[in-house]
Amino acid sequence: MDMKTTAHANPEFLTVIYEVEGPESQARSTATRICLDQTIEAESNLLPPSLRSTILGFLEDLRATVEGRYQATIRFRGDLLGGECSDLLNILFGTSSLRGDVTLRSFAMTNGLLASWPGPRFGIDGIRQMVGVVRRPLLCAVLKPLGRTPRELAELAVQFVEGGADVIKDDQSLVDQDWCRFDERVSRCAEAIARAGTRRGRPCLYFAHISAAWDTMRRRAVLAKSLGASGLLVAPGLTGFDALRALRSDDEIALPIAGHPSMLGTLVDRGGGGLASSVVYGLLPRLVGSDLSIYPAFGSDYPMSQQACVLIAEHCRRTWGSLKPLMPAVGGRLGSGSLVELNSALGMDVMFIVGSRIQQSPDGVVAGMQELHRLLKD
Amino acid sequence: MDMKTTAHANPEFLTVIYEVEGPESQARSTATRICLDQTIEAESNLLPPSLRSTILGFLEDLRATVEGRYQATIRFRGDLLGGECSDLLNILFGTSSLRGDVTLRSFAMTNGLLASWPGPRFGIDGIRQMVGVVRRPLLCAVLKPLGRTPRELAELAVQFVEGGADVIKDDQSLVDQDWCRFDERVSRCAEAIARAGTRRGRPCLYFAHISAAWDTMRRRAVLAKSLGASGLLVAPGLTGFDALRALRSDDEIALPIAGHPSMLGTLVDRGGGGLASSVVYGLLPRLVGSDLSIYPAFGSDYPMSQQACVLIAEHCRRTWGSLKPLMPAVGGRLGSGSLVELNSALGMDVMFIVGSRIQQSPDGVVAGMQELHRLLKD
Repeated sequence: MDMKTTAHANPEFLTVIYEVEGPESQARSTATRICLDQTIEAESNLLPPSLRSTILGFLEDLRATVEGRYQATIRFRGDLLGGECSDLLNILFGTSSLRGDVTLRSFAMTNGLLASWPGPRFGIDGIRQMVGVVRRPLLCAVLKPLGRTPRELAELAVQFVEGGADVIKDDQSLVDQDWCRFDERVSRCAEAIARAGTRRGRPCLYFAHISAAWDTMRRRAVLAKSLGASGLLVAPGLTGFDALRALRSDDEIALPIAGHPSMLGTLVDRGGGGLASSVVYGLLPRLVGSDLSIYPAFGSDYPMSQQACVLIAEHCRRTWGSLKPLMPAVGGRLGSGSLVELNSALGMDVMFIVGSRIQQSPDGVVAGMQELHRLLKD
Repeated sequence: MDMKTTAHANPEFLTVIYEVEGPESQARSTATRICLDQTIEAESNLLPPSLRSTILGFLEDLRATVEGRYQATIRFRGDLLGGECSDLLNILFGTSSLRGDVTLRSFAMTNGLLASWPGPRFGIDGIRQMVGVVRRPLLCAVLKPLGRTPRELAELAVQFVEGGADVIKDDQSLVDQDWCRFDERVSRCAEAIARAGTRRGRPCLYFAHISAAWDTMRRRAVLAKSLGASGLLVAPGLTGFDALRALRSDDEIALPIAGHPSMLGTLVDRGGGGLASSVVYGLLPRLVGSDLSIYPAFGSDYPMSQQACVLIAEHCRRTWGSLKPLMPAVGGRLGSGSLVELNSALGMDVMFIVGSRIQQSPDGVVAGMQELHRLLKD
């Protein structure tokens, strides 16, 4: 099939909003460069004139932002994309990532394109059903620190369940170390959590960390499921986003997936170009099928404004074609004081990750968890 | 096995150099934080005292740099790592990526750890043998732009070979579009390049672009080989570094691999934290087994200082355990003027990527390529 014959056959588009430096003439020049760089990475006269309008990005709009930069809306033809997440990332920002002066602010797709993305298998409603909690934020406790044995982690997990945790996840540092092998860890923790959940009369989910090269990761996913894990923790900054999507689409696995932010901070624009945090922690994980997206809370140890934190949560939850909403999950050494403030800013459909501090509660882990629960119910 | 019993059994270490902000007291505090964040991501008192020295990162050295920042050398125990690239990235920079004020400058491993990494299968010597060129920089031409049919790309490829290209690679925008299907593109181009190579009496390598989710990518790699491609082009910024390593270690494939920088620019520190470009384009691709590492040249359209460009090339080529050197490959809309300057700065063991400009040579593609060759031989 010749390109020319398909020129008007494809009504699908990817529309991307970039932010670039002013003044306006420079902004227009950068935006025009993006139209070329993200498609042919060459000057437009390398294409016959008949192909330019169908292959090159098209600058739909350029306007000043309140911060004095410029927002460029660029439309790309859907049939430039293959079906892979790698294709999408390449068109969104592949070559522009080398510049250092472009921010990928947001993107949208026509419905035909969006339909090829799975989105969350369970989403917020599915997770809520599993834990039997309808109307309050969820609490997720973390199995840590690295250095503990599977038996010690399982004992800690029981205390988390008794304190009222809705979800328990492995710390991302737990992989397959000599003193804490993957299979023994997952087996002991899954069993302890299931038993404690039965005792308290309400299940607690357990997300096992499986990040690895694809073959190992899939093997771990299947093994984790057979050992009783009720969810999977994956860091797409370590594995690539396509790997998360492949897990999501695998009907043999069919477990909820939590996306962990390890290494994803490098993607986020901090003044030297990059992706908006709402793309990194909101749009991309949702598209590939995370059910939970873990990211730093505002007021935590990591730089994150309240505005950015709320915007990410909105991108996780707002209507987007038929993709289910995913649960924003914020963490970063949170104390009880910050939980109330976060709850008020982020609303009900959010999960709080309580990591190391809960283990140092003056009255013990169980009492510490119970205290957090009371705060969220008031 | 209990952690305590293995405390002194493992003499292997990962040693990482980070750069952090001053003054010294702040630098020391950040460095101490990294020792915790990159291992247990918690306060040290969460670990029993007996485990602290074996689990936590150890700050070996802190010194001021000439630029007024501080360089922290931190040692991590080798047995914290599993065998995956994801484990390495997580320990190197996973949590620190969320901060925005830490640069990963470099890293090294003891020989026992390094031995688990494959490194390039062919490396500089292997590539030189394949193309029959011993003592000059290599020239790589690019099949582009997106929008052309397989037949048109194959015709262009023949001109590249006649002009003296040593290597031809797909543009990274070529995936599997309707008007340019993967199998037809690779089949036509591989055949045309092989035939033209025979005519001129010296082979020209052809690297087919295969970036995708793992299952698709491996299928494409096997297919590309069966269709006559002599190399594979992969963008680890799109696929993850583990995927490149898995391809490298697959004896059924056993083709040279070129790493493309698409999306990798987001990893590079541009003042808001991140990895040094010599880690992104040098150490990591070499460790996982790229034979060629493509990155922006100094003086190109993308920000890259001469010093950084040369440092990357040094990281590609210097002695590093038993890992073969990989060929630095620089590009970015290079003209003939810049080639001479790049050659003088980067030395002989380098590849120049000539992309779109060569197609606009006033006397045609063949004459344009021949002119570049003359420059490199003088």
